[in-house]
Amino acid sequence: MKIAVLLAGSGVFDGSEIYETTLALLALDRADVSYQCMAPNIAQAHVINHITGEEMPGEKRNVLVESARLARGAIIDLSVANAEDYDALIVPGGFGVAKNLCNFAFKGAEMEIDLQVRDFIREVHQAGKPVGLICIAPTMAAQLFGEGTRCTIGSNAEVAAAIEEMGGQHVQCPVDEFVVDEEKKLVTTPAYMEGNRLREAAAGIEKLVAKVIELAN
Amino acid sequence: MKIAVLLAGSGVFDGSEIYETTLALLALDRADVSYQCMAPNIAQAHVINHITGEEMPGEKRNVLVESARLARGAIIDLSVANAEDYDALIVPGGFGVAKNLCNFAFKGAEMEIDLQVRDFIREVHQAGKPVGLICIAPTMAAQLFGEGTRCTIGSNAEVAAAIEEMGGQHVQCPVDEFVVDEEKKLVTTPAYMEGNRLREAAAGIEKLVAKVIELAN
Repeated sequence: MKIAVLLAGSGVFDGSEIYETTLALLALDRADVSYQCMAPNIAQAHVINHITGEEMPGEKRNVLVESARLARGAIIDLSVANAEDYDALIVPGGFGVAKNLCNFAFKGAEMEIDLQVRDFIREVHQAGKPVGLICIAPTMAAQLFGEGTRCTIGSNAEVAAAIEEMGGQHVQCPVDEFVVDEEKKLVTTPAYMEGNRLREAAAGIEKLVAKVIELAN
Repeated sequence: MKIAVLLAGSGVFDGSEIYETTLALLALDRADVSYQCMAPNIAQAHVINHITGEEMPGEKRNVLVESARLARGAIIDLSVANAEDYDALIVPGGFGVAKNLCNFAFKGAEMEIDLQVRDFIREVHQAGKPVGLICIAPTMAAQLFGEGTRCTIGSNAEVAAAIEEMGGQHVQCPVDEFVVDEEKKLVTTPAYMEGNRLREAAAGIEKLVAKVIELAN
């Protein structure tokens, strides 16, 4: 079994959430499942100073190059990834998902998903393989998998309302649990949308990874 | 109990190793021990493209600002950190330790440790509190704690020889174990100096964190 892990940069405010990514990869490795990190070769929406939360003016970074930090260099360009090579896909959270993979952070329910990202995730899904979306990543669920897709981002009312507006079915969920849409083989967990502590996020992510592996079997 | 975690940027080739840092913080959180991340407010030695391994020309980054990515923003400038506020200190590995906190990567056994970094670690040590050094960080041990300090970086002959040349006592150690110098309260583990898999590094780091907490009690 080999699972694709789609990244969006490196750092909670403009990339993939670092802890969520590490915890997902650790859970895969502990289950003896191999994985391949990948990311789109596109410019980041912006670069955030993670101390001040402010944009760093004039700073330009590339999603694939920064994502490589999270993969110790072992990453491929999403444009050369083939959905058929993988048994499942996991997308960790972080604002980079909502800024680089789609533009939910800027447009809310009017958002668009990057076409390469959308097509890759749909190909995995249409081949009957499970997809795991962590944290803010489930904002893409309804556009990806259609009307009525069940998912969670925890309990944030504004984000949940946006998911419903896009046609999704939002289910409240605590940080250490997950929600599964069995028909669509979609597994979601709130992680840092809900949690304040690493061990809380870890608990939900470990369960999500185990469920994705189970559905991929 | 509160433990200081000293960072060196974010990314294995020019900063703190991301997995090692996350695993150390997770082990602390699971032990219900609070922690404070900190880093020096200095320029990175350079910025490495983590796909190619090459330096990114013209790119400048700050160690404290990039380390903040690993702390989800919850970080302080090392210059305002007081050793007396902490019961122990942990330094994860990554080339950033050998490039930004000291210059082992450029000068080998002729290396110098950043003075602020050296003084802070020594203050923690001189107050009788334990220090945990992960991966490449034990190259600083002999200069910090004196002649005969027992430590490990795993089995890399060249780095072990440099440690001995600086007056340290290198002990071979597998990735899932640690070495302790009981007199100096120094705990070291090879992590990615030795391991190839996340779960291997996790095993050694979890044991190191448990030992540091035990010595801090």
